[in-house]
Amino acid sequence: MERWRVGILGATGLVGQRLVERLAGHPWFAIEVLAASDRSAGRPYAKAARWVLGDDPPAEVRGTVVRLCTPEDLSGCDLVLSGLEAGIAADLEPALARAGLPVISNSSAHRTDPEVPVLVPEVNAAHLALVESQRARLGGPGFIVTNPNCSTTGLALALAPLHRAFGIRRCVVATLQALSGAGLEGPRGLDTVDNVIPFILGEEEKMERELAKILGAPIAVSAHCHRIPTLDGHLEAVSVELERAVSPAEAAAALREFEGDVAGLGLPTAPVRPIVVRDEPDRPQPRLDRNAGGGMSVTVGRIRPCPVFTLRFVLLSHNAVRGAAGGTVLNAELLAARGLLARRGRA
Amino acid sequence: MERWRVGILGATGLVGQRLVERLAGHPWFAIEVLAASDRSAGRPYAKAARWVLGDDPPAEVRGTVVRLCTPEDLSGCDLVLSGLEAGIAADLEPALARAGLPVISNSSAHRTDPEVPVLVPEVNAAHLALVESQRARLGGPGFIVTNPNCSTTGLALALAPLHRAFGIRRCVVATLQALSGAGLEGPRGLDTVDNVIPFILGEEEKMERELAKILGAPIAVSAHCHRIPTLDGHLEAVSVELERAVSPAEAAAALREFEGDVAGLGLPTAPVRPIVVRDEPDRPQPRLDRNAGGGMSVTVGRIRPCPVFTLRFVLLSHNAVRGAAGGTVLNAELLAARGLLARRGRA
Amino acid sequence: MERWRVGILGATGLVGQRLVERLAGHPWFAIEVLAASDRSAGRPYAKAARWVLGDDPPAEVRGTVVRLCTPEDLSGCDLVLSGLEAGIAADLEPALARAGLPVISNSSAHRTDPEVPVLVPEVNAAHLALVESQRARLGGPGFIVTNPNCSTTGLALALAPLHRAFGIRRCVVATLQALSGAGLEGPRGLDTVDNVIPFILGEEEKMERELAKILGAPIAVSAHCHRIPTLDGHLEAVSVELERAVSPAEAAAALREFEGDVAGLGLPTAPVRPIVVRDEPDRPQPRLDRNAGGGMSVTVGRIRPCPVFTLRFVLLSHNAVRGAAGGTVLNAELLAARGLLARRGRA
Amino acid sequence: MERWRVGILGATGLVGQRLVERLAGHPWFAIEVLAASDRSAGRPYAKAARWVLGDDPPAEVRGTVVRLCTPEDLSGCDLVLSGLEAGIAADLEPALARAGLPVISNSSAHRTDPEVPVLVPEVNAAHLALVESQRARLGGPGFIVTNPNCSTTGLALALAPLHRAFGIRRCVVATLQALSGAGLEGPRGLDTVDNVIPFILGEEEKMERELAKILGAPIAVSAHCHRIPTLDGHLEAVSVELERAVSPAEAAAALREFEGDVAGLGLPTAPVRPIVVRDEPDRPQPRLDRNAGGGMSVTVGRIRPCPVFTLRFVLLSHNAVRGAAGGTVLNAELLAARGLLARRGRA
Repeated sequence: MERWRVGILGATGLVGQRLVERLAGHPWFAIEVLAASDRSAGRPYAKAARWVLGDDPPAEVRGTVVRLCTPEDLSGCDLVLSGLEAGIAADLEPALARAGLPVISNSSAHRTDPEVPVLVPEVNAAHLALVESQRARLGGPGFIVTNPNCSTTGLALALAPLHRAFGIRRCVVATLQALSGAGLEGPRGLDTVDNVIPFILGEEEKMERELAKILGAPIAVSAHCHRIPTLDGHLEAVSVELERAVSPAEAAAALREFEGDVAGLGLPTAPVRPIVVRDEPDRPQPRLDRNAGGGMSVTVGRIRPCPVFTLRFVLLSHNAVRGAAGGTVLNAELLAARGLLARRGRA
Repeated sequence: MERWRVGILGATGLVGQRLVERLAGHPWFAIEVLAASDRSAGRPYAKAARWVLGDDPPAEVRGTVVRLCTPEDLSGCDLVLSGLEAGIAADLEPALARAGLPVISNSSAHRTDPEVPVLVPEVNAAHLALVESQRARLGGPGFIVTNPNCSTTGLALALAPLHRAFGIRRCVVATLQALSGAGLEGPRGLDTVDNVIPFILGEEEKMERELAKILGAPIAVSAHCHRIPTLDGHLEAVSVELERAVSPAEAAAALREFEGDVAGLGLPTAPVRPIVVRDEPDRPQPRLDRNAGGGMSVTVGRIRPCPVFTLRFVLLSHNAVRGAAGGTVLNAELLAARGLLARRGRA
Repeated sequence: MERWRVGILGATGLVGQRLVERLAGHPWFAIEVLAASDRSAGRPYAKAARWVLGDDPPAEVRGTVVRLCTPEDLSGCDLVLSGLEAGIAADLEPALARAGLPVISNSSAHRTDPEVPVLVPEVNAAHLALVESQRARLGGPGFIVTNPNCSTTGLALALAPLHRAFGIRRCVVATLQALSGAGLEGPRGLDTVDNVIPFILGEEEKMERELAKILGAPIAVSAHCHRIPTLDGHLEAVSVELERAVSPAEAAAALREFEGDVAGLGLPTAPVRPIVVRDEPDRPQPRLDRNAGGGMSVTVGRIRPCPVFTLRFVLLSHNAVRGAAGGTVLNAELLAARGLLARRGRA
Repeated sequence: MERWRVGILGATGLVGQRLVERLAGHPWFAIEVLAASDRSAGRPYAKAARWVLGDDPPAEVRGTVVRLCTPEDLSGCDLVLSGLEAGIAADLEPALARAGLPVISNSSAHRTDPEVPVLVPEVNAAHLALVESQRARLGGPGFIVTNPNCSTTGLALALAPLHRAFGIRRCVVATLQALSGAGLEGPRGLDTVDNVIPFILGEEEKMERELAKILGAPIAVSAHCHRIPTLDGHLEAVSVELERAVSPAEAAAALREFEGDVAGLGLPTAPVRPIVVRDEPDRPQPRLDRNAGGGMSVTVGRIRPCPVFTLRFVLLSHNAVRGAAGGTVLNAELLAARGLLARRGRA
């Protein structure tokens, strides 16, 4: 099969680098264009990007000349994956969709648009029906699909099986979020050694809003977000009220057995087990568990009764993989599998 | 005034070192005996203790020969402050109380004893009435008083004014606890760099149990405890359900105006403001706020509505000062001010 | 005595904050003007500065309106202390000196000027003779004096007694430097957790150049500078070649006995012992020893024979105190004691 | 080819875990026995080992019952790889060698034995001649071979090409060593956050002694060793005196072109390039470069003139891979390739 030609927007940023990493050697996708701002455009990728993922960028893109994020620069692509920040994505992504490009975005700019799916393939693949209504409105093959905020993704995955099995009424969640979630321009070392920043702009609102949209239910969520001195892996402590009494063992079984909506589709980076349940008293831990399932599984542990609600537990999700670039690529895989991509004419 | 003669139990441990630090130069108390295990007994304090608080131990105790934690070794004291671990304190502290010594303890060994006050002076000074019933039972001047667990102290202080003003029904709290809370034998660096340990043995149960005892109300508490790579300062994210609707401004006013039960007693280390309320969106932070009020104030910030309960906020308390040695010393000060200490006969 | 009226340049930066901290309550100096860039000018200091030293700025300056770094804004000062970055200091500091102001600077902009002393009071107080030649050239009372780079200060202090006693030929030094040395805009947390940056722009050249100037001898220095994830305290591993065989005990004695050129002058912040020598095998350590002598002493440990040169040892110096703001204030104290300041006419 | 049957000594420790990780799926070696102390013996490996390398132990060893480190327990092995600590290895490893087993050790216990090679395959493969003299003395097929201390390995690899090309007279080296170098029982988090420990017992002596033995030349080395808060990757700053003037470019060429003594042997884990030279001003960095060459390459950067000696540079080596388990496995591969292993009779 000929691979789909992919453009990466914001290719020099942290999400962009993770997108490059995950597409290098991907069986369905080939990097066609690396696009970024005019600070980077015109320079070879290895010079334009301050590569922070270890060693060097993949050999095949080191010399690739970075281009701009315009429809013209991306005209040779079948789809684009976007690691742009929300402020820039707000105008740029719709322009590309109007130009006929499927935009699989990681940004928050369009997540509140009722026509834009906030997609977690295992959880709400059915929301892809929105793509057709977007296309009808735009009058072309382009559209926008996003993945959730990095701290929402893990929560949505862990709550989905509980919601399906038992019904969730409300939950309180406290996050311990890694520095990579803030991108290359995140907090200074001086503010993060021996410290916690108990505030991430807009994060709590995103979690509260996106979870309800993904699960399609008016679940009340109270989120407390913290930035802590870890590199990768968002840990979340969750107290959840279910519609009936549920034992930890029942909940663990529901989580373990969860296959999600994409089992059997053969998506290349879908994890074998979307949720890994651990029995040790002190797991998950960011350094030990963030790479479960190649960084695409959510790890849940310490499932126990909650004195205030029904149950409580801890979850861990790799924010930069499952919560960002990995989620974006998985969304692209689902679109390909569902026939929502098209070969665009070659120049 | 002649100063009270104090013995410190577990003087070489981390809480013991903090007790030494806080008693050096104290206007009411003089260190009479430094007591520890037989590994340390017989050696000068500066050799026996691996001093981790910076520079050297206070000059006046460097050469003090460490003794054992027996009634005989402590017979020259008017009271003892205990930094012993629970396992050792379980037998040792009652033995000293039976020998006539007031024991102001930091350990958890006796906190569930209904006759032992879990004392936070500003909050439940009235619980000192239990001292007389202990004395009656023991038939002598000795007794045991404890401070709460280090993660409970800050929570109790922050919730007390809200409980008094508005009534608390239940709360969910997630802690981000510093390494010093685990003492000198806490987690390894290998387990704490770029990591979180989402489990502290017995900690959640202590918080849930002690808070109700201190506030004298059956408040349901769901605690999620995490050890993170900070040195000092426990940060806690709290969602609380009150008996009526309360605005953030009302809650902030109640916290700011809280003086506590010991205002006016002139206790030397009581903070001017038990609770410091901050308005910045990103405070409190452990490194910036743990030393508020000389480490004795609790800092509260981010008071805001809670989508699930009534209000939510963040609090920070210096675990090794307010939550341990500082709390122990403040309890001793309160006992002195209330006339519950006695000069014991000199040999 | 009426206190000298001081202006602080770059008052909102990290060195500026440390200057404010050290001048609050200073017996000889009073803060008259807080000056910074036009981003801050016109705003109260507590709003203009993102205060990172814990709690809040000293009460007396919280409401002080920040001004610009112009001769007019600073006309009511007897002297200025500068925490400006080199790029800005290059033009600004000479302008102020020409306007008649003594400028005690922390910046590197003028350290290579042969008429500007790079001053460590205990080591080269005699270099103050240069002040008169500056004044003669400028034709007024103004002049510039600087302290060394933060990593040079500790080295110069530790090597001075060895140079005086035994003669130093050359040395190799590797530094492990704290994040605060890079100021508020230093490395990101993402680049400093579980990492070392083995490069600090211009730092090695500064050390090599400034040491020779301070000691007044053509000592060859090879410096290796590293930024590591500590907050405060530069640690340096030194191998030194002396002009004759010297035992560790001889060297330790020379360091311990060193009083420096300012002993007896009664400078308020001069440490009792410029150099603290420790005998433990694993000291100095940044967190334990950086506050020795109120942050103004250099701690030296592990003095031992060197298989390649004569001796090797480890030193630690508080970069933000002794190596920056504290050194600047000590220089100002020395200037005052030497009669090199003058009351300027009041408007 | 039938794979060699390998026993791992100290299999539950940190080096042991790395040995397990590297042998899982190895083309030449199969894990036959996992051996440890009597605390672990009799328990399945997944229970006996506190696995700290992420996720879970490899599936094939999770249920393997741990055995003791006796000749009987290991009688079914063709060779043993040892991650034992020196104190235990001192007696145990010779006993196994006398029982006929080749012991490829990571411990320091026998490195000073003149008959035991301290082996870095690319550098001193010729030292394997000592195996025969050991065998002659022991009268059987057993022998001991070790790899160097983790901080020596990187230094030996980086200096070997310079020594061959230009001759090394002496060097000064300062290390910034990761926490994993101290094993599972290394420094506490409380001692490593915001701190450096400038002392590692015996480390400097090992570096100074082992380097000379490996290079077979009486090179004077002055080592300064520091434990810093990184997880993996020892960084070393080196000043070196060569026998003649050498430019950085010449040195870089010698390092880049170095193939080592094992090129062409097809050793499965030998890195393509033993030494990676980087040109960026701020590399190598532990987090970015420790996995170069699968953790088996040493990365060298910042090659520049030295004001005191000839050249200076920074090197980085993965202490737990190249400097420990990876080095041990590579040594075993070399022994296999050289025909120094033998199939032992099956029970």
